[in-house]
Amino acid sequence: MPHSLDHLETPAALIDLPTMSRNIQRLQQRAERLGVRLRPHVKTSKCLPVIKAQLAAGAQGITVSTLHEARHCFAAGIDDILYAVAIAPGKLPQALELQRHGCRLGILTDSLESARAIVEFASRHQCAFSVWIEIDSDGHRGGLKADDDTLLTVARCLHAAGMRLAGVMTHAGSSYELNDSESLQRLAEQERLACVTAAEQLRNQGLPCPEVSVGSTPTALSAAHLEGVTEVRAGVYVFFDLVMHNVGVCHREDLALSVLTTVIGHQLDKGWVITDAGWMAMSRDRGTQRQRRDFGYGQVCSLEGEWIEAAQFHTANQEHGLITLANLDSSTLLSRFPIGLRLRILPNHACATGAQFPAYQALDAQGNTQAWSRLHGW
Amino acid sequence: MPHSLDHLETPAALIDLPTMSRNIQRLQQRAERLGVRLRPHVKTSKCLPVIKAQLAAGAQGITVSTLHEARHCFAAGIDDILYAVAIAPGKLPQALELQRHGCRLGILTDSLESARAIVEFASRHQCAFSVWIEIDSDGHRGGLKADDDTLLTVARCLHAAGMRLAGVMTHAGSSYELNDSESLQRLAEQERLACVTAAEQLRNQGLPCPEVSVGSTPTALSAAHLEGVTEVRAGVYVFFDLVMHNVGVCHREDLALSVLTTVIGHQLDKGWVITDAGWMAMSRDRGTQRQRRDFGYGQVCSLEGEWIEAAQFHTANQEHGLITLANLDSSTLLSRFPIGLRLRILPNHACATGAQFPAYQALDAQGNTQAWSRLHGW
Repeated sequence: MPHSLDHLETPAALIDLPTMSRNIQRLQQRAERLGVRLRPHVKTSKCLPVIKAQLAAGAQGITVSTLHEARHCFAAGIDDILYAVAIAPGKLPQALELQRHGCRLGILTDSLESARAIVEFASRHQCAFSVWIEIDSDGHRGGLKADDDTLLTVARCLHAAGMRLAGVMTHAGSSYELNDSESLQRLAEQERLACVTAAEQLRNQGLPCPEVSVGSTPTALSAAHLEGVTEVRAGVYVFFDLVMHNVGVCHREDLALSVLTTVIGHQLDKGWVITDAGWMAMSRDRGTQRQRRDFGYGQVCSLEGEWIEAAQFHTANQEHGLITLANLDSSTLLSRFPIGLRLRILPNHACATGAQFPAYQALDAQGNTQAWSRLHGW
Repeated sequence: MPHSLDHLETPAALIDLPTMSRNIQRLQQRAERLGVRLRPHVKTSKCLPVIKAQLAAGAQGITVSTLHEARHCFAAGIDDILYAVAIAPGKLPQALELQRHGCRLGILTDSLESARAIVEFASRHQCAFSVWIEIDSDGHRGGLKADDDTLLTVARCLHAAGMRLAGVMTHAGSSYELNDSESLQRLAEQERLACVTAAEQLRNQGLPCPEVSVGSTPTALSAAHLEGVTEVRAGVYVFFDLVMHNVGVCHREDLALSVLTTVIGHQLDKGWVITDAGWMAMSRDRGTQRQRRDFGYGQVCSLEGEWIEAAQFHTANQEHGLITLANLDSSTLLSRFPIGLRLRILPNHACATGAQFPAYQALDAQGNTQAWSRLHGW
């Protein structure tokens, strides 16, 4: 019987739209219950129809990881954008360009050196930026500690030079390393407290700090309350993936992104099925390697999305996926996984897998697909 | 003093052209000394100016990993193309399309099921394909063993139906796991012998087998002789990378691809320098993880390309690279690696890192750069 996906060439990145919509609703409703705005991180999808679905559901503003994303989204009419990576001085001209065209762009700093570079550039170009200060709430990356005096020095440097102090933001990225709801709730509280404390430090000194922005998908889905916070940011919740499944913030039926692939060969003596989805399709992300369940290069599913538990996707070459089917004799293997059979692979990390494709194939509840292009590069 | 790379936005993928030219010459001359043709695998660069430099140096024909690469190169006038992945039956219409436009495309099979699918399709569309048979020379992926009777069955099936038997090909990909010249030479001989034996099996049965194609970068650079072989294929030799450096087939000065990045922050108490090249720029490839030297996400170099041995690029987030500088006090760290400083990172795996970028920046001996677009997707 012909299948609605038969016309697609493989490998292809499929978005299951009903699942995506459910994911969007889930975090949106949660943010509303917690009394905060949701500013989705579009680095996961880099895809306008996805981003517009998030905004249509109630999200306010977006977060980007590159100024390329900012330009792309601004060109599509989205004007409230937080560029959530400490800005390299060399990127200030691009930021100014966006601002001069009417984009309400927020830029980020976490050091006096970078704050000074912003101030100098702004003075030279007679402009003012809206600047956020990055707070380190879990030691995993950048940011200033809430009790670090540099926080005040940075804020004063920016404020005195006429920059708009937009607020403080933090990202408890270490949440990806957890896998129980108690630890996640504790980290969410640590993330909230660090950011709220930083905001209070600034306000106590008479410095403005209108926004308090926290988030990562696991903490956003785990926080018991978000007192003092104005917005949450999260990215991968829109698709979820096997890493998030291991973290414990989604169920298998919540995974909206999969890679459609075709069986191209076998090595029967080894129990191998070979497909046309290698690391170029899946990415080299092995995010589940050190989690409670290692999914190799992804979880193999039937075309209908049923998990094939016995399948281990252990090796990926550029355009070859090597999957071992344990305990199947050769003739069963050949008849169940014939050449030309199509499978779907759930990725470890949706952000990394999506990035391998110029476009998604968006699959609706009726089985129709539509190509949705996505952004590549910087 | 202004530097010739100052105008580039970061992250950027730089090709050092003099180094690339030297690499191209090296394998080309080796192939000529060994009396075989060189058919470079363009999956590494996916970039026409690079491919044309390989052909200009004497390469004959190209190898591709996707039909998208084949279409792209054929449109640029390259018509001798081997698609070196066992073809999925669903891709035969694309192969036919190329052939009908005049492309001398070779397709690949390693099973009776797939050979039958080719024959059936060809009969339905009244066409004939040029078909190569994949030989398994080291058990690492697909292919038929040289002494497997299926080899003859497959060849007869194709031949009887009027397909052109182009030859046999093998790829000893397990060469990536080696690191001494003796083992590499031994594997190169194993690769050669398997493929030559397979060709003899076919010829002994009166079946045509004009071509005998072997290769991987390490074996191509290690073979003592290639008697009976007509062509070698190799991809990553054009750029080399840290994986190849660990394998021992290149020196550090042979690495032609690097990622230009900017310092965007620090965590002084941890000795961290944070850059704007995360895994989106480097890829998630950790190919050196189990080799004799683990380079993390890449080897950090100065803008001039000097290795900074004390720098460990241990963690990559999407747009953040975390590099630890051992044994530097805070003020030295800040003065030697100030915000805005540009660095170059040598990648683990050039094929994977290149794929993250829509274009390379080709840097010539005079310090001029030119954007060279590269292919993305399928």
